[in-house]
Amino acid sequence: LSNVEANLSRFGLSLPITAPAMAKYSPVIVQDATAYLSGQLPREGDRVVVTGTVGRDVSVKRAREGVVISLLRGLAALKAELGSLDRIQRILKLNVYVQSAPDFFEQSVVADAGSELIYGIFGELGGHARTAVGVAQLPKNAAVELDLVAALQPTGR
Amino acid sequence: LSNVEANLSRFGLSLPITAPAMAKYSPVIVQDATAYLSGQLPREGDRVVVTGTVGRDVSVKRAREGVVISLLRGLAALKAELGSLDRIQRILKLNVYVQSAPDFFEQSVVADAGSELIYGIFGELGGHARTAVGVAQLPKNAAVELDLVAALQPTGR
Amino acid sequence: LSNVEANLSRFGLSLPITAPAMAKYSPVIVQDATAYLSGQLPREGDRVVVTGTVGRDVSVKRAREGVVISLLRGLAALKAELGSLDRIQRILKLNVYVQSAPDFFEQSVVADAGSELIYGIFGELGGHARTAVGVAQLPKNAAVELDLVAALQPTGR
Repeated sequence: LSNVEANLSRFGLSLPITAPAMAKYSPVIVQDATAYLSGQLPREGDRVVVTGTVGRDVSVKRAREGVVISLLRGLAALKAELGSLDRIQRILKLNVYVQSAPDFFEQSVVADAGSELIYGIFGELGGHARTAVGVAQLPKNAAVELDLVAALQPTGR
Repeated sequence: LSNVEANLSRFGLSLPITAPAMAKYSPVIVQDATAYLSGQLPREGDRVVVTGTVGRDVSVKRAREGVVISLLRGLAALKAELGSLDRIQRILKLNVYVQSAPDFFEQSVVADAGSELIYGIFGELGGHARTAVGVAQLPKNAAVELDLVAALQPTGR
Repeated sequence: LSNVEANLSRFGLSLPITAPAMAKYSPVIVQDATAYLSGQLPREGDRVVVTGTVGRDVSVKRAREGVVISLLRGLAALKAELGSLDRIQRILKLNVYVQSAPDFFEQSVVADAGSELIYGIFGELGGHARTAVGVAQLPKNAAVELDLVAALQPTGR
């Protein structure tokens, strides 16, 4: 197990078994020492498991769970591409999109679930830039979506 | 013609003749081996030609056409900056914003039109990370908007 | 004073005194010669000072002021991280999110306030890629939010 996965297990979490292939684009693109992760929905297998509008039919607590599910799925995709999550040096930028009711303004609290998990698994290198916004609709009626850019360990040093 | 443009012609597509200058910012910024493309609307000349809300007054089919128009415009801007589109190694990340009706959740299907075109023109290096979200309003009432980050061919190697 | 701050003062602007720490993520991440700025709200101290929906209860003029306040706050965060704003070579990409009424489509005009300030303070290197979108809700009911990616001066050359 990578250190990242060992840290995940301390939170009672694990990576989903498979990161399903997507036909039209790539879950992860690696260029030089940077990895770009595609937008992740809170899916288990093919099914989006946290759907609806946050602040109306989805609670903050459930939306935060959706962020964690999305992030785990993203980590699984990164592992599938990189071989080991320990190749990730740190997360540079996390973008969180929250499908929001008109009077819901706690997008930051929802996104914090992802930021807290990143700190939990990357420790001292857990710092990351972040943007959270509320959007009107997400694909498949997902409550949340996230993507990120990660720096990879320098090689050959 | 660059290979990219030859591939475009196989789809019956061509670049718009001019990528109009924008006063307040740059269509494309190149830094080292990375190009950042500004948000592209589905314009022909100065006019946005695919306007309205997808899922209400714009069909999925028309929104997908809007994505193609926006991407062609972006490629024209890249060509204007780079001299040739063959300087692009691959697209690292594509972001697609869809102006969406409250009950429209097929943003991925709309964005697929762009991803399919990227595969069509970049072939084996067509893989790219992607995020698609639905937003409430886009500039000029455009139905779609997209931006991207591209890796350029390494030089002097 | 850095050149950037000298230029700011020509516009009658100055950096806010402190860029408050955020618990859950970092205002700025620097990796190699690139800086990633987290989403900035138009805050003074802890308080968001430009709230509401643009095109309904917030005017374009006030939203543009919100963009300037957000950008100044971002510059203050960059200075806190970098030591001096003169370490910034140029802004590569600016993203502007505008909390928008259903019939408000002038997101570009709002975002222009940020682009104009960037040109004003970076001069010849003021060119930057940009994307502006309208979103349904922003954290804390902020009228605008922005983030950016900046290139830093090459060192040791």
